[in-house]
Amino acid sequence: MEELLEELLEECRPYTKMGKLADYIPELTKGNLDDLGVFVVRSDGKRYSAGDSRKKFTIQSIVKPILLLQALMDNGIETVRSRVGVEATGKPFDAINMTDQSLLSENINPMVNMGAIAMCTLIHGETYEEKFQRVLDLTRTLACNPDIDVDEAVYESEKRTGNKNRALGFLLKAYNMIDEENIDAVLDCYFRACSIRVTSEDLAFIGYALASRGKAALTNERIFPSKYGTYVNAILATCGMYDGSGDFAIKVGLPAKSGVGGGIMAVAPTRMGIGLFSPGLDEKGNSLAGIKVLEKLSQRMYLSIY
Amino acid sequence: MEELLEELLEECRPYTKMGKLADYIPELTKGNLDDLGVFVVRSDGKRYSAGDSRKKFTIQSIVKPILLLQALMDNGIETVRSRVGVEATGKPFDAINMTDQSLLSENINPMVNMGAIAMCTLIHGETYEEKFQRVLDLTRTLACNPDIDVDEAVYESEKRTGNKNRALGFLLKAYNMIDEENIDAVLDCYFRACSIRVTSEDLAFIGYALASRGKAALTNERIFPSKYGTYVNAILATCGMYDGSGDFAIKVGLPAKSGVGGGIMAVAPTRMGIGLFSPGLDEKGNSLAGIKVLEKLSQRMYLSIY
Amino acid sequence: MEELLEELLEECRPYTKMGKLADYIPELTKGNLDDLGVFVVRSDGKRYSAGDSRKKFTIQSIVKPILLLQALMDNGIETVRSRVGVEATGKPFDAINMTDQSLLSENINPMVNMGAIAMCTLIHGETYEEKFQRVLDLTRTLACNPDIDVDEAVYESEKRTGNKNRALGFLLKAYNMIDEENIDAVLDCYFRACSIRVTSEDLAFIGYALASRGKAALTNERIFPSKYGTYVNAILATCGMYDGSGDFAIKVGLPAKSGVGGGIMAVAPTRMGIGLFSPGLDEKGNSLAGIKVLEKLSQRMYLSIY
Amino acid sequence: MEELLEELLEECRPYTKMGKLADYIPELTKGNLDDLGVFVVRSDGKRYSAGDSRKKFTIQSIVKPILLLQALMDNGIETVRSRVGVEATGKPFDAINMTDQSLLSENINPMVNMGAIAMCTLIHGETYEEKFQRVLDLTRTLACNPDIDVDEAVYESEKRTGNKNRALGFLLKAYNMIDEENIDAVLDCYFRACSIRVTSEDLAFIGYALASRGKAALTNERIFPSKYGTYVNAILATCGMYDGSGDFAIKVGLPAKSGVGGGIMAVAPTRMGIGLFSPGLDEKGNSLAGIKVLEKLSQRMYLSIY
Repeated sequence: MEELLEELLEECRPYTKMGKLADYIPELTKGNLDDLGVFVVRSDGKRYSAGDSRKKFTIQSIVKPILLLQALMDNGIETVRSRVGVEATGKPFDAINMTDQSLLSENINPMVNMGAIAMCTLIHGETYEEKFQRVLDLTRTLACNPDIDVDEAVYESEKRTGNKNRALGFLLKAYNMIDEENIDAVLDCYFRACSIRVTSEDLAFIGYALASRGKAALTNERIFPSKYGTYVNAILATCGMYDGSGDFAIKVGLPAKSGVGGGIMAVAPTRMGIGLFSPGLDEKGNSLAGIKVLEKLSQRMYLSIY
Repeated sequence: MEELLEELLEECRPYTKMGKLADYIPELTKGNLDDLGVFVVRSDGKRYSAGDSRKKFTIQSIVKPILLLQALMDNGIETVRSRVGVEATGKPFDAINMTDQSLLSENINPMVNMGAIAMCTLIHGETYEEKFQRVLDLTRTLACNPDIDVDEAVYESEKRTGNKNRALGFLLKAYNMIDEENIDAVLDCYFRACSIRVTSEDLAFIGYALASRGKAALTNERIFPSKYGTYVNAILATCGMYDGSGDFAIKVGLPAKSGVGGGIMAVAPTRMGIGLFSPGLDEKGNSLAGIKVLEKLSQRMYLSIY
Repeated sequence: MEELLEELLEECRPYTKMGKLADYIPELTKGNLDDLGVFVVRSDGKRYSAGDSRKKFTIQSIVKPILLLQALMDNGIETVRSRVGVEATGKPFDAINMTDQSLLSENINPMVNMGAIAMCTLIHGETYEEKFQRVLDLTRTLACNPDIDVDEAVYESEKRTGNKNRALGFLLKAYNMIDEENIDAVLDCYFRACSIRVTSEDLAFIGYALASRGKAALTNERIFPSKYGTYVNAILATCGMYDGSGDFAIKVGLPAKSGVGGGIMAVAPTRMGIGLFSPGLDEKGNSLAGIKVLEKLSQRMYLSIY
Repeated sequence: MEELLEELLEECRPYTKMGKLADYIPELTKGNLDDLGVFVVRSDGKRYSAGDSRKKFTIQSIVKPILLLQALMDNGIETVRSRVGVEATGKPFDAINMTDQSLLSENINPMVNMGAIAMCTLIHGETYEEKFQRVLDLTRTLACNPDIDVDEAVYESEKRTGNKNRALGFLLKAYNMIDEENIDAVLDCYFRACSIRVTSEDLAFIGYALASRGKAALTNERIFPSKYGTYVNAILATCGMYDGSGDFAIKVGLPAKSGVGGGIMAVAPTRMGIGLFSPGLDEKGNSLAGIKVLEKLSQRMYLSIY
């Protein structure tokens, strides 16, 4: 298996340079286009890796399924579903999903920014500091890694430049889709969550917890009920790869989530969790070489669920 | 198994009357809200049914994956993919998927009307009569039923009232997304294909062919390469149930396609094909009781792929 | 006055080459970018011209106010207003003015293609041949020129390539905004009307009839009630220059209508009618040099109504 | 003249109760539907009034032409035009005027909220407090009334509930359409400007200054260059009455601006300024009875510019 991973990285290495570093926040332009790593956690407990699988990067949008999971654990499916829809929007992740003049919860989902910001308000906690801490704790538990922390420089950078997200937050408030009064606090929680620092290994462990629908890789202890796993995986399969989710379904065929930090977390239900890292992005904001590795891995191991 | 199906029909019968008959063409309003049928074809060759599983109805949008399949068989993945995108549109099936003033192939998919009309032009055949005949033949082969025919009254009704579809056809032409000059002929082929008459049993057989990624249920002969099956199933999972595909993914978790005639074809990859019929539709145009039956069947038999 | 016109043409001649010939129908690409003409009909009966003021070109969208006028004369303000709105759409003339999935009469106006096509159905006449003949007759009466005819080559060209307009026609029908069953006949009337051949002189006379709110320039006979003149002029002022109407209001300040054939008809209420011709278009489809001439003429003669 | 005004008020009084008080901020619901007033300032210096012409109300959107005027006086036409477009948007005043994912200055105008917020950033002043003070001073000068002040209760109410406007402000910033970093300060200035308290009399004086293209009614002193008057009047004519500007052009035919406080300021170029007040609004947010009075006044006195 490790051999296969090495082989795939070699085959896909040429793609690393064809992507572009995210530039919407200054901090992300410091990435290294040469980085390429993959990590696999299998259901039999075995783990395999190749390349820069322990290189750290910010989780960015891959925190969205974790925010959704925490919201589900705190509120149950019915409440979460009533607040934010589950249909693909057909638009970029940061789109203003208005139907002309009306903003309907059915027109957003937890994998676009608006939906993820709404998730932050549903997570339990006295303060947004506490809410964020619970998200960080859940991330550590899912990844079986208590050392996961926040990249403060990225967080500051997000905060400074996040005006589009601020607009989205105020729109959610204006249309009564969130109850919170303090939009700045909500966004602070969101920016912090996006700045959590992980490795391909961490993502593979998180992916494993979703693949097993709730069990931690190392301890086999149940972290969340299996129905929440199915809920999250279904949304990842239909909306996880931004507006490139359809192509990803055809070519890879796995629930997955990408982040503009260059990471991808993929879930092969009942079989394995996969973590990838390569910071060069395609035009939709997905790790270009990362998708290529997944495409080949899925073909060689017949991982497609379709 | 048959017992389980009977049980599910009883549990879901109350939902049949909560749906509404399609009224966009006069002929469809003649349906009977009481009808409810289910048919299952398993990979071990066993077949099970309950209720009105042999009642005939028009295939409507469930012909879309068959049009896609025929287009794939005639042109290969690359050509088909280059002509019509694969992302969910976040909009109803008959939407005008324009980005403001531009119409891009990436903004449509083979499961919305625009994409399905485009598929008709890609299918080989000297004339549209011949193209249609090939679609009908493929339908018969997939369903292992040479007696499948066209409901002429529905076809005439579609033809008379299909102005929105005509508009979509001329838009495709205006934006150079189809080569055909004779839009009326294309639409005639499309209206005819939507008027093919099937039963839940037929749909289950068609679903089986997709579940087995290309093999006919009765003969086990290969009808199409497995890669086309994966392509179709992936698109069904992300766009098959109109703009209710996300909810369906969460609740049922299977590639599926519904039609406003009241049918649903569902695919449990490697496991079974399922056909349903109940003409009462929910507001998105999906068979209301049909989805309920699938929801329960999926839960009881752990069919979700997520 | 004639001197002033000559002077303005000289000043604006450099702009003729900065525009582009319309290329959406092959026939229009045969125009000559050097052409530049202006014609003025004053309320005191005096007429002035300069440049290619007798060069013929197709009226194109400048027929829209004439279609509106004929519809008003045949049905009255109330009926016409109830069928087609009067607000600027903020979009190009051939836009699909849908609010998401619904098409409302309030979202179109008689100066965009959809509204103009709807006007054709409101004009009285047993057949569309007869309706068109009445439009042609009105055009001749307004222009005091019985020799105005149709450019058959342009008409054939429009007909062959008018798929976007066909789509708009079928949408109008699909949304019950027009009663007519025979969309092809409606479009034939519309294409023919757009192909009427005029000169700057003709346009100045038509503009005069609107400036005088109903009186013919040569005979001083009333052609239409003054309230229809106000109705048409108001719509020209707010929607006449495509989505460049706001800039035109600021710079010129007159009700006006342009056509992609290169013509502009401008109305200085109570003062004069102005006709212009220069086939080089700006990116919004308005005659580039034509607008420049109007801009300077308006400034020198204090024509702005604002 | 005074008699005519009295007569018109009586004729239009039944309409006062058919409108609805603005309810988007709590403070505005305290208005009295019975209020109805009109004030006219003629170019010969004569003034006429009827009804509640000295009742105070908040200026709301009628401050938009004043913000535009101040921005023009501080920056000139070229700069202002380059920052904010002049085309009608075809959408409500508080719409998010995005073309899909992009926000272009050409898609907004100074009469919609986004454009008016942008104007605030262009007005000169060290602080937003100072900028606002200059707007208030200009308002007083135009109205020849040094006692005009701010309704603090309305201002507080706007501030508390203005999340949609906050969203618009952050979007302007996110798309680099304004330079200001401190969005809260910009909005504070905007909310304060909307809360300026005026009477029908004040509006008539302001309207007069625009009708005379720059001269104060009482002193005949020039307040601003005439070209700015033409600029503002042209925009009022095409975009002043929200997405009811087209109907207003047809029925009244004057540049005008309405506010949800119930006021309307109308401009009859070279002839008169008109102020109206009646707090019952139609569905587009325009004073219902106010428009009726203007309609009749325009007809009786042949005020339409078209």
